[in-house]
Amino acid sequence: MTAQIDPFHAIAISRIAHRMGVEGHPVIHMEFGQPSTGAPRQAIERAHHVLDTDGMGYWESPLLKERIAAHYAERHGVAVDPEQVILTCGASPAFVLALTSAFAPGARVALARPGYVAYRNTLKALSMEPVEIPCGPAERFQISAAAIAALDPAPDGVIVASPANPTGTIIDAGELRAIAGVCAQRGIRILSDEIYHGLSYVEPARSLLEFAPDAFIINSFSKYFSMAAWRLGWLVVPPDTIAAARARMGNLFLTPPSLSQHAGLVAFDCRDELEGHVDTYRRNRALLLEALPALGLRRIAPPDGAFYIYADIGHLTDDSLAFCARLLRDTAVATAPGIDFDPVDGNRFIRFSFAVSTGRVEQALDRLRPWFAAAG
Amino acid sequence: MTAQIDPFHAIAISRIAHRMGVEGHPVIHMEFGQPSTGAPRQAIERAHHVLDTDGMGYWESPLLKERIAAHYAERHGVAVDPEQVILTCGASPAFVLALTSAFAPGARVALARPGYVAYRNTLKALSMEPVEIPCGPAERFQISAAAIAALDPAPDGVIVASPANPTGTIIDAGELRAIAGVCAQRGIRILSDEIYHGLSYVEPARSLLEFAPDAFIINSFSKYFSMAAWRLGWLVVPPDTIAAARARMGNLFLTPPSLSQHAGLVAFDCRDELEGHVDTYRRNRALLLEALPALGLRRIAPPDGAFYIYADIGHLTDDSLAFCARLLRDTAVATAPGIDFDPVDGNRFIRFSFAVSTGRVEQALDRLRPWFAAAG
Repeated sequence: MTAQIDPFHAIAISRIAHRMGVEGHPVIHMEFGQPSTGAPRQAIERAHHVLDTDGMGYWESPLLKERIAAHYAERHGVAVDPEQVILTCGASPAFVLALTSAFAPGARVALARPGYVAYRNTLKALSMEPVEIPCGPAERFQISAAAIAALDPAPDGVIVASPANPTGTIIDAGELRAIAGVCAQRGIRILSDEIYHGLSYVEPARSLLEFAPDAFIINSFSKYFSMAAWRLGWLVVPPDTIAAARARMGNLFLTPPSLSQHAGLVAFDCRDELEGHVDTYRRNRALLLEALPALGLRRIAPPDGAFYIYADIGHLTDDSLAFCARLLRDTAVATAPGIDFDPVDGNRFIRFSFAVSTGRVEQALDRLRPWFAAAG
Repeated sequence: MTAQIDPFHAIAISRIAHRMGVEGHPVIHMEFGQPSTGAPRQAIERAHHVLDTDGMGYWESPLLKERIAAHYAERHGVAVDPEQVILTCGASPAFVLALTSAFAPGARVALARPGYVAYRNTLKALSMEPVEIPCGPAERFQISAAAIAALDPAPDGVIVASPANPTGTIIDAGELRAIAGVCAQRGIRILSDEIYHGLSYVEPARSLLEFAPDAFIINSFSKYFSMAAWRLGWLVVPPDTIAAARARMGNLFLTPPSLSQHAGLVAFDCRDELEGHVDTYRRNRALLLEALPALGLRRIAPPDGAFYIYADIGHLTDDSLAFCARLLRDTAVATAPGIDFDPVDGNRFIRFSFAVSTGRVEQALDRLRPWFAAAG
């Protein structure tokens, strides 16, 4: 028997939203975690040039691996050998690669609930066992060293996500160090999903690599670099797993798109344009944090980073999917239901993605105000 | 413990070849199975247009799914619902998707030896068990209904590849029907790798979908369509597994590159340019089939399709990797060692890829003639 995998309910919402759009409704898409902006201008120019001059065979860019390795030295003060950097078709297969390199079927892997739904589902699809750690407002919806220390028996691995999806919460340096310590002590392998790095509104997120040199680090060009459908991500693997992980990459995935690798290398140096997107997100976040409490949404996870607001709607519903569908139908604002992230408590949460223009956020709030006033 | 996965030895050969090229040696690359041509001209034009006009969010092209479904009706007389078509980042993840959708760890999956090394390695990486069926010249290096019927106990699945890598042999319609029959009878799920479809020099390869409506069909834009590093492939899943397979796609891989989907849709209608490539391969094949026996390479698998010659070099060596390295050093012609495809008998085989220009094949033969004369 193969494992039962839950669908993404946000996709159902998005389908309705798409149909409404086709029918002429002015839908505002806040249901998915992807920038509404495209790739940096210079990255696109580079892609044009490569299209005209390169036959594009299977390829892994040595320069991009070096650039990513250098990034860890520059930003995090950590030495990474470019051979530790494996380029992937996005963060999703990087996660599959990390799991199959680190663990065998039956492995128990701990993770925060709420969390990105694909962690749980991918573990199940690979016949591994998700060990969910319930994290509520008291824990800032985040995993902690204490929670990992309390697991009995110790799991084989743990997934850390900071900034997190769906909450945006960041784990601070002291806690990351403590997590690295307890995992080293208990022999727990860490997988750190750092896909929202670069998108911080408090202090910048630290890499787990600063504290746990044997962690697997997952990142991608889909969020900060605004290149979601270019399908390019990377995995930093511990030195002792380079051969195992590279063999899996070659067999299970081969290589990522050549064009995206060329463009991604350029994107690394398009900081001005990319920081402009972060400024937009910062404005959007401020607008939402100011407006949502007036709508009755006062219990909000601390949105330290990423581009999400995860809000408690327990006073309005115990069925977040139906709530999102109703909200969409009435206001043409698409959002993601909490059950995508938390099968236990998610029915009383909703996630807004603010990776849209500030004008869209303002429009959305104009529609949400009367709707929540009537609902409340 | 995670499984031990063999590396691709052809990559070691390719690294030496690359170094030789940097040092100024005129290397001829016949070691990898990828066209030396680029994507069709109109597909590249489409990509330029999309780069300038589309933000490229996560996306699955409905038109491309419909086009692929229509292809099975046109070419194979089989009705496929577009929802059965899952677009992937190449054939490799399509294979991972098929395996994780169809089987649980521990599943026993039969396959021909020799065969594409990633079948065996991906099965092991997913903790499934490859059941190798030795196939020699007497079997045209191909799996058969009789061989599948003789397996005791019956495996959970079987991988069929026609045209095959490394041999190019095609399984004819009668045998495919018989394979479908014995698998239906014994409850064996078929995965059919049809990545070399479109590249046939005898009769066109038939799809297993014509005979086994519940087979998983793997294909890609990497070979016939000459778009290897665009990373676009597809999987046709049986109707009863659509939900399971789509849930796995979303969680394990998300979507394939948007740009490649736009370009791939156009490539489907660039038959003139693509058939030109096939004409080149046909000429290359004829040149090699005429020349190789004179070099002493008389025991050659019937190269019905794909762009490979798999030749017995047992009279010259019992170490195909060392042989390929020596051949490369002496002649600057890079080839793939048989051990990549057959861990038992592969040490006495070599694979030539002729997906290069005809001029290159002629040059290669000019270098091989004196070398084999001296070696023989």
